[in-house]
Amino acid sequence: MKRLTHLESYVRSVRPEFETMLGDLVETPSVSSDPRRAEDIARTATLAKQCAERLGAQAQIVTTSGYPVLSGGWDVGKQYPTLTIYNHLDVQPAQEPEWKQDPFVFRKEGNQYRGRGTTDDKGPALTALFACKYAVDQGVPLNLRFLWELEEEIGSPNFQDALDQRHVVPRPDSVLVSDTIWVSRQRPAISTGLRGLVAARLSLRTGTTDVHSGLTGGGARNPLAELCAAVHACVDARTGRVKIPGFYDEVLRPTAAEMKQFLSSGFQVSRFKKAYGFRSIRTENCSDLLKRIWAAPTFEVHGLPGGHMGPGVKTVVPPSGEVRVSMRLVPNQHPRKIFSRLKAHLKKHNPDVRVESSGQLEPFRGVTQGPYAQALHQAVQAGFGKSPSLIREGGSIGAVALMERAWKVPILFFGLSLPEHGYHAPNECFDWGQASGGIRTFVEYFSRVADHSAGGDSSLRSSGQALRSE
Amino acid sequence: MKRLTHLESYVRSVRPEFETMLGDLVETPSVSSDPRRAEDIARTATLAKQCAERLGAQAQIVTTSGYPVLSGGWDVGKQYPTLTIYNHLDVQPAQEPEWKQDPFVFRKEGNQYRGRGTTDDKGPALTALFACKYAVDQGVPLNLRFLWELEEEIGSPNFQDALDQRHVVPRPDSVLVSDTIWVSRQRPAISTGLRGLVAARLSLRTGTTDVHSGLTGGGARNPLAELCAAVHACVDARTGRVKIPGFYDEVLRPTAAEMKQFLSSGFQVSRFKKAYGFRSIRTENCSDLLKRIWAAPTFEVHGLPGGHMGPGVKTVVPPSGEVRVSMRLVPNQHPRKIFSRLKAHLKKHNPDVRVESSGQLEPFRGVTQGPYAQALHQAVQAGFGKSPSLIREGGSIGAVALMERAWKVPILFFGLSLPEHGYHAPNECFDWGQASGGIRTFVEYFSRVADHSAGGDSSLRSSGQALRSE
Repeated sequence: MKRLTHLESYVRSVRPEFETMLGDLVETPSVSSDPRRAEDIARTATLAKQCAERLGAQAQIVTTSGYPVLSGGWDVGKQYPTLTIYNHLDVQPAQEPEWKQDPFVFRKEGNQYRGRGTTDDKGPALTALFACKYAVDQGVPLNLRFLWELEEEIGSPNFQDALDQRHVVPRPDSVLVSDTIWVSRQRPAISTGLRGLVAARLSLRTGTTDVHSGLTGGGARNPLAELCAAVHACVDARTGRVKIPGFYDEVLRPTAAEMKQFLSSGFQVSRFKKAYGFRSIRTENCSDLLKRIWAAPTFEVHGLPGGHMGPGVKTVVPPSGEVRVSMRLVPNQHPRKIFSRLKAHLKKHNPDVRVESSGQLEPFRGVTQGPYAQALHQAVQAGFGKSPSLIREGGSIGAVALMERAWKVPILFFGLSLPEHGYHAPNECFDWGQASGGIRTFVEYFSRVADHSAGGDSSLRSSGQALRSE
Repeated sequence: MKRLTHLESYVRSVRPEFETMLGDLVETPSVSSDPRRAEDIARTATLAKQCAERLGAQAQIVTTSGYPVLSGGWDVGKQYPTLTIYNHLDVQPAQEPEWKQDPFVFRKEGNQYRGRGTTDDKGPALTALFACKYAVDQGVPLNLRFLWELEEEIGSPNFQDALDQRHVVPRPDSVLVSDTIWVSRQRPAISTGLRGLVAARLSLRTGTTDVHSGLTGGGARNPLAELCAAVHACVDARTGRVKIPGFYDEVLRPTAAEMKQFLSSGFQVSRFKKAYGFRSIRTENCSDLLKRIWAAPTFEVHGLPGGHMGPGVKTVVPPSGEVRVSMRLVPNQHPRKIFSRLKAHLKKHNPDVRVESSGQLEPFRGVTQGPYAQALHQAVQAGFGKSPSLIREGGSIGAVALMERAWKVPILFFGLSLPEHGYHAPNECFDWGQASGGIRTFVEYFSRVADHSAGGDSSLRSSGQALRSE
């Protein structure tokens, strides 16, 4: 109780510094998918290192074959367990016409923070950092570390490089991943699983140059029309049903107990529609919708570049086109198997369509029982004054599967984003309510993990795979 | 014969002036589909007027609700028949990455002229102009007029405005349209029909903003996938068969005699593939291919803007998308009927898809028999030393149907473009061989039309509809 009183004044006192740091990070456009932003990524790494050092942590820029990873923290003693918090500091592109401001100018409006990266994931990263600082200052007997990636939005292609450097990225006893989203502001949510991803580029070239559709139309193949047919061969666009043979073979369907938990999360179809701005969706049934977004795989079309995109009508038959697609996977689907099935299916449908992988991520099931899960549940209750619901996450975090494979320690999720924060969308924002509640929750969690550990709960000192079966 | 000797020295002597004028016109980027080029269109009108006046013609810039039309010529006497030559001076966009030069810089390489608009249709327009000048100077008893449009590439939306101004755009006794293409350099071709066009924009909006495909995928509708399905519902992309009910109902199939003429045109499947740079086409059978490109309707996809088009992968579900399509029509299909059928079909398939017209042009059958057709046949033989083949044109020229309806006079086609000229394609070019042969042919045609007329062939003085039945 005494600790929480101190905590309140700490939270109040760090707000200006939190906002300055968040502003500096948001105004450095770390768009990992855009090669022209490479310098901004490098600047973000330096900036993040400075932020950590200003709070007394040591921090190291770990080089990889791609963009670096930031690794650091406060080592308080080898006798204590280590907890690593994962966040990422790269961001999505921000070219949507709907932006009401320059996405890379930080704006504070009351309790709201606006700009690309505020909620995904720069705000939560700083929230955790400030919580660590407090816990360390209070003498919480835990080695608190952070791991900040700069290639999360492109599927973590080089994160393994960082994990391989064990002297600078030490294996912790548990991991907390803070890059997930609540169902609603009214009730905190703990994610217990992630969907995987198979992204692919389908391309077709039938000519070498734009040709006149009057002079050649009828004889010329139309690569865009053929790619539309290829998409139609893969998915029933209205129902979302994927038509690739074998696609659903390994899907682990959610249990009745899980479905019950999903339904008690406070999820509302109408709120979902409003939060994401949908005019209509594929189902209005709550149970069906939750199954679709958290526990079922998908096939999406993201864009079909090719042909005339400029102003006006141009009646040409283009020489080529491509479709960018991705599939979200659920446990126990295997990205490589699914990609092979897509390839085989399209080869049968139209052998001229080239299918290339644009990234694969495994689906993931997190820790839902045992002392860590319990500590997190209680910490959220303390930090936000409300008991959290156990949900799943429809998104994918590539680094998670890699950390699990490398470290074999429990990985838990606690994110701070809200549906209205515009995660991966225009007008992204974060807010002080989530940041301050987040600092409280993280501090409480660290404290409980330390208490359990000191109380001889040996299961909190990981000894490898064993713990994962909790 | 004496006339032709003079003509040869005339042709040689005007070449430098022809090239200067063509260069000036090509370097004024009159892209009618791009609103940012409005000033260049105005500049083109002024420039074209100056070209005509420099050759002794009078010329007038006729204003319309859109871009102007140039009308002018040499009036030699009301007692003589009037022949109007139609060309257009607006051009296609030139954003293709395949351009090996700035498309709006005129380049002369030996006999070749390079740049956007050289063959379509600035080169042929000047060719006809120089022929008129010669014929007038030689005292050919014909009122030779020209009509140069600046909105041909966008479907002639305001050409009727110009036709309505009869005092500046007088009704002629016949029309020669010079905006068509030969089958090969080896044999001149006279087109006897055009395909029509129905262009449309299919759009679908299911949300208001880009959303995360992990957070919403499965529940969210995917407008791009639904538009792909809509395309698939309209056309079998591999065969080209249009699936809109009633689409083929009014199609006038080519007669056996026409097919025979098509086949004797010197058309070669391999040359067609090479000229347009195709890797593969829908059929390798010559007769089937000719029927497809000249005498059968089509359904083409030109572009699908929507979703993420920038660099990298962006796994969002976009809020909307659109497909730009067009259908080429053949006699006796009716653009309005076809558009209604498309609309009704898509309404049944997916009622949320909006279908908007982007322009309609009627198909056209030209004059194939009688004195004008005969004069043209002989003129081509004289101008190029080879007898022409009678073919059809797969493209559409909106102004043609309007002139026919307004004037009810014979309309004949004689174009100078070659397949290798890159009509509506990157690296467009024209050449002096076609220009000089074109001047000879036009002069010969004028002379023959005048001779026939003077010889009392009253059918060459149009008295309206009667002539059209020839």
